[in-house]
Amino acid sequence: MEAAVIESIIPTPDLMNARRILAIQPHYDDNDIGAGGTLALLHELGAEIHYLTVTDDLMGVLDASLSPVKAKKVLEAEQDRAGAVIGVSSQIRLGYPDAGRYDYFELRANLLKYMRLLKPDFIFTPDPWLAYESHRDHIQCGLAAASAANLVSLLRLPSSDPEVDRNYQPHDLTGVAFYYSATPNTPVDISGTNEKKIQAIRCYEAQFMREDMEMLLQVLTRKESQYAQSQGMELAEGLKVMAPMQLHCGL
Amino acid sequence: MEAAVIESIIPTPDLMNARRILAIQPHYDDNDIGAGGTLALLHELGAEIHYLTVTDDLMGVLDASLSPVKAKKVLEAEQDRAGAVIGVSSQIRLGYPDAGRYDYFELRANLLKYMRLLKPDFIFTPDPWLAYESHRDHIQCGLAAASAANLVSLLRLPSSDPEVDRNYQPHDLTGVAFYYSATPNTPVDISGTNEKKIQAIRCYEAQFMREDMEMLLQVLTRKESQYAQSQGMELAEGLKVMAPMQLHCGL
Amino acid sequence: MEAAVIESIIPTPDLMNARRILAIQPHYDDNDIGAGGTLALLHELGAEIHYLTVTDDLMGVLDASLSPVKAKKVLEAEQDRAGAVIGVSSQIRLGYPDAGRYDYFELRANLLKYMRLLKPDFIFTPDPWLAYESHRDHIQCGLAAASAANLVSLLRLPSSDPEVDRNYQPHDLTGVAFYYSATPNTPVDISGTNEKKIQAIRCYEAQFMREDMEMLLQVLTRKESQYAQSQGMELAEGLKVMAPMQLHCGL
Amino acid sequence: MEAAVIESIIPTPDLMNARRILAIQPHYDDNDIGAGGTLALLHELGAEIHYLTVTDDLMGVLDASLSPVKAKKVLEAEQDRAGAVIGVSSQIRLGYPDAGRYDYFELRANLLKYMRLLKPDFIFTPDPWLAYESHRDHIQCGLAAASAANLVSLLRLPSSDPEVDRNYQPHDLTGVAFYYSATPNTPVDISGTNEKKIQAIRCYEAQFMREDMEMLLQVLTRKESQYAQSQGMELAEGLKVMAPMQLHCGL
Amino acid sequence: MEAAVIESIIPTPDLMNARRILAIQPHYDDNDIGAGGTLALLHELGAEIHYLTVTDDLMGVLDASLSPVKAKKVLEAEQDRAGAVIGVSSQIRLGYPDAGRYDYFELRANLLKYMRLLKPDFIFTPDPWLAYESHRDHIQCGLAAASAANLVSLLRLPSSDPEVDRNYQPHDLTGVAFYYSATPNTPVDISGTNEKKIQAIRCYEAQFMREDMEMLLQVLTRKESQYAQSQGMELAEGLKVMAPMQLHCGL
Amino acid sequence: MEAAVIESIIPTPDLMNARRILAIQPHYDDNDIGAGGTLALLHELGAEIHYLTVTDDLMGVLDASLSPVKAKKVLEAEQDRAGAVIGVSSQIRLGYPDAGRYDYFELRANLLKYMRLLKPDFIFTPDPWLAYESHRDHIQCGLAAASAANLVSLLRLPSSDPEVDRNYQPHDLTGVAFYYSATPNTPVDISGTNEKKIQAIRCYEAQFMREDMEMLLQVLTRKESQYAQSQGMELAEGLKVMAPMQLHCGL
Repeated sequence: MEAAVIESIIPTPDLMNARRILAIQPHYDDNDIGAGGTLALLHELGAEIHYLTVTDDLMGVLDASLSPVKAKKVLEAEQDRAGAVIGVSSQIRLGYPDAGRYDYFELRANLLKYMRLLKPDFIFTPDPWLAYESHRDHIQCGLAAASAANLVSLLRLPSSDPEVDRNYQPHDLTGVAFYYSATPNTPVDISGTNEKKIQAIRCYEAQFMREDMEMLLQVLTRKESQYAQSQGMELAEGLKVMAPMQLHCGL
Repeated sequence: MEAAVIESIIPTPDLMNARRILAIQPHYDDNDIGAGGTLALLHELGAEIHYLTVTDDLMGVLDASLSPVKAKKVLEAEQDRAGAVIGVSSQIRLGYPDAGRYDYFELRANLLKYMRLLKPDFIFTPDPWLAYESHRDHIQCGLAAASAANLVSLLRLPSSDPEVDRNYQPHDLTGVAFYYSATPNTPVDISGTNEKKIQAIRCYEAQFMREDMEMLLQVLTRKESQYAQSQGMELAEGLKVMAPMQLHCGL
Repeated sequence: MEAAVIESIIPTPDLMNARRILAIQPHYDDNDIGAGGTLALLHELGAEIHYLTVTDDLMGVLDASLSPVKAKKVLEAEQDRAGAVIGVSSQIRLGYPDAGRYDYFELRANLLKYMRLLKPDFIFTPDPWLAYESHRDHIQCGLAAASAANLVSLLRLPSSDPEVDRNYQPHDLTGVAFYYSATPNTPVDISGTNEKKIQAIRCYEAQFMREDMEMLLQVLTRKESQYAQSQGMELAEGLKVMAPMQLHCGL
Repeated sequence: MEAAVIESIIPTPDLMNARRILAIQPHYDDNDIGAGGTLALLHELGAEIHYLTVTDDLMGVLDASLSPVKAKKVLEAEQDRAGAVIGVSSQIRLGYPDAGRYDYFELRANLLKYMRLLKPDFIFTPDPWLAYESHRDHIQCGLAAASAANLVSLLRLPSSDPEVDRNYQPHDLTGVAFYYSATPNTPVDISGTNEKKIQAIRCYEAQFMREDMEMLLQVLTRKESQYAQSQGMELAEGLKVMAPMQLHCGL
Repeated sequence: MEAAVIESIIPTPDLMNARRILAIQPHYDDNDIGAGGTLALLHELGAEIHYLTVTDDLMGVLDASLSPVKAKKVLEAEQDRAGAVIGVSSQIRLGYPDAGRYDYFELRANLLKYMRLLKPDFIFTPDPWLAYESHRDHIQCGLAAASAANLVSLLRLPSSDPEVDRNYQPHDLTGVAFYYSATPNTPVDISGTNEKKIQAIRCYEAQFMREDMEMLLQVLTRKESQYAQSQGMELAEGLKVMAPMQLHCGL
Repeated sequence: MEAAVIESIIPTPDLMNARRILAIQPHYDDNDIGAGGTLALLHELGAEIHYLTVTDDLMGVLDASLSPVKAKKVLEAEQDRAGAVIGVSSQIRLGYPDAGRYDYFELRANLLKYMRLLKPDFIFTPDPWLAYESHRDHIQCGLAAASAANLVSLLRLPSSDPEVDRNYQPHDLTGVAFYYSATPNTPVDISGTNEKKIQAIRCYEAQFMREDMEMLLQVLTRKESQYAQSQGMELAEGLKVMAPMQLHCGL
């Protein structure tokens, strides 16, 4: 007997209504690679977009002669350029060590802080339940973001900043959009913004050799086309959008 | 080519034979929300039922003016009342910090202690492999309970209490029943005990505003009906029941 | 609407081309139980095979009168005998405490060391994304091996041994083969080497009572037959083989 | 050449002016054993006294048949009786595992909470710099209390409770009095309150066999007499009293 | 019988011969407060001076309206100005969270990196064995720096950067100079550079209210005068200077 | 006013009565370097002597071409030879990573195990309160050994081995002898056994270049002579011997 799979019975929030987005990424290019077309589209539709990058992303810098301090400057400049293409209002950088050790609870408290400070209605982040994702930064980032989204309104739970907690009044966080998901429920047509997405990704020169960059862009396009076809579209990013309360007990 | 999915070949233990149950929950109301109908039914059928609560569950208490000491007393009283409805023999409370940091190995050693002390034939606990469960307490609780169930008979592995280990003779732990599971294999008809379940859940007033309580009860009923229909029943909780040896290597 | 499942678009590496294998296992018998037939076959086809065992595996030793020092010697002798059957060139033993606490990052740095030192083209390890695997050693081992495979060529990421890093030139790691997987993509016909596999497993006497050993062998054979039939074979191990770059972002 | 020893140049706060005391102890009897005479005296002089106990103190309970739950009740009742003798207004119990693992930063955040909530002018705690103190609970407790006393007014540093931080206005913490110190600077004449001290200590029956209790009391009296003589007194507790700002950089 | 105190029998290295100094501090002003006069003097005598700051030092920033990003910029600008006064060649900033959680081994591996990269002959750092120092940042920083100084030449011990290890040839680290020490063995006459020291400290405006700055400078001058007198000088910083091999086994 | 120093009032145990010794060392040569003369003497007087080595001691092995497995064999052989000189009955090796990360509580639980198994009357270990000892292995080893000695008889505190706890009856641990102490209280005349000590130390060839070995032996002899003279002896090791109950609260 085949086991029945129990699905959530709560309706999927409508991403297209997003007004203020906090997009939380492990490395400096994940938001753009995973959801750059969608984010550019939402910006065109009037949404305010903030990026938060968890790690310092230093491990993948190709030029071995760059010191950490210089490499960091290069990365930030690239990220600023890419952000201008997508329409990012601000860049928050937590600076945890790339592929390194950092504390889940400290990270979550930092995410709580920025959720309470900026009061976004939508969170973007990588899907940490993606099977065969081996990068701990992605798993920790996605789990901490999901947990913070689920618990943000509990006033007894401290963020990393008492000043922020002091002034916070619970607000309405509508949804979490996971990218890099194996089971998307929300296809977003990015035919109109894919150019921006590609232009943004091309800014990230410090970590991709020219031919690797071309291969990455080809792979992305092929995945987006393939998924789009199954949805009757031409080019689409697939997101898993959920209400915060769905992130608990399988509701 | 679609990948074949390899299923376990070991038969599912028969939950209806349970004689002594240790139901291990992260928060004080999870056993009742996830499996209260089944537990009440098994109690009516003669099983002895013990609840073990991992955390102090303080984060969700609504009344901001309650001190931790007072909030704890309120929660315990509510839990005692609910337990009387279901038929719970004893309440064990480990008191780890809700949504906080505690050690997996210490928790598992504590669970080993109570498994060796009480010698249950069935364990209940949340399914920690539920995708999109973001609450670390649920994941840690389920993983530690599953691991303890799998390893309980290894006498070289210490529990948290040498006195208990000193007196322990390996016993037969028949099965683990996971609730909040997306892939249940054991539907339990709770038409006869759903009233008790609802009455028990209504005891948890400190953490639910009146309208949230009503919504929770509606959502539960809808999920239980929907799942029941797929099983040719009217109202059912869906559990994933496994033999302890299945919790290793995909046997 | 049923959610589409997004699959990887990168081709599966051909395991049969393996020339040098590093098989990373949590306990001293996992490689043989999970993939002994395949490994013996690849050895017959000319591949060089190295085993790395993460833990000291002491928890399951049956004879309670054996001291840790003596138990360790017994286990190593058994493992050497089994290795001779399969065709293992060297046994690396990290000695972390079985079912105990050890650091993910230290483990991964050690795995990086041996990947950089031995330069294998294929890694074997348990699938850590197997649902209902409760043994933390298996999850940690598989996650650390997968992450090390994905990051091994990043020269800014230190292994546990500066001497090894000093001499390392990035090499071509072709694939990772996960055993104990619920979604294998590579059936390997082991009709010709199953005898060796069984002979190897029978060496592990310290942790299996005679009847448990017989039961284990029966369960394995039944699973391998059942899976083989779905692939039009007689006896097969099912492996999930992936390119290292697939272990990130669902590429 | 003998090295000069650089002493602090900041004056020692006057303990006799204490109006509200938070006495932070690792186990349930340390405040009374280390400073019970002084605390009883300060209470007689009008000070309000609060006890905070870090651990659950379960390891030393003699009666092996007592379950943790029952042992905890016995300990709390004894502590309440002893507190009534000394004049303790409230008992705060954090419940960390005795002789076990708990997190320094979580503990310090909890101590910050109660310092900000109660606004004491003096803190009591064991001297964690006492050479040959082997009990980690004492070292962690003293270090966390000293650090919290030094940092309590930094509003950017969160306590464990945002509600408390929300309402906190920096207050004047005058001093920290360390007991169990090898280098006391403040002898307190306890001739008038030693009776109370002894009566309080005699309440702790669960952890001392009768003869051990008598020996403890004798040792204490002998130490207090010996130290008192060096100060021209008859019976004295020796405390190391310091201003919070002295607990940094050797000022 | 008074216990004899066993002193080291290895001669104290001559600090005045320092040619390249790595001064490792927990917060951005500690080197200057603890040893600014000595460092300015050594720079005048021709030594090259590098500062490494362990934490981001954000907790003490007074202006509550400054965001972390802006506060960081202010602190760095102040530190650059102060460094110009003393004669600092480069500022390395690790950015660990001030008064927060970070890993001892990661920190030590980072310190090993910069010791191997810069090859200083002298290290400066706070004395972590100072009794009644409660600030964990100071204790961790001093312990990690001392351990790194003691172990820097062991090539089997990895730093955080394989590239640096790859190129490192063991060099002669002559001494470690601890400031904030209660038992200095090396008085340094700073009559000629105290002006610079004061000017440098006055740069740190973000963390000191005007009157606190004046008090700090007064306290420092008084301590330096008092210590100087015991050494027959007028104004002196007292340092504990030791050979790296003395930092082990009491040699 | 000079602060009075409060000394312990409990008499120093008589080391010369030792019948069974467990000497706990961080690295494989510390017992011999720190107390080899005393241990050889006690063996001559009839005491049974067991060595427990906490780490694998691999960091200091000079020959860079030795793999860890081979280096370990070399170290063990050297240690066995040295042990034969001193009169060591058994060598227990825990194998924690030298200069690496391991858990204090796991280590202490292991030490509790061997204390309960072997029932020594005296423990030897490095003094972890030695100022300017920078090696974390020494500090952790000494603290864990001291704590285990202080708590060994508490039956509620588990060791790492339930089998051992099951059979343990509290025994009389008379004393702890700390070597590498700055404040020894027990001079032991080693004129008659210094030859053995030197012969034992000369076995440790893998970690000392010839000239370093000679220098070490000279430094040791000079320290032992110097200390001996202050005690009216010719050659003496200085130990700090304490009763287990002195290792708590400054009793």
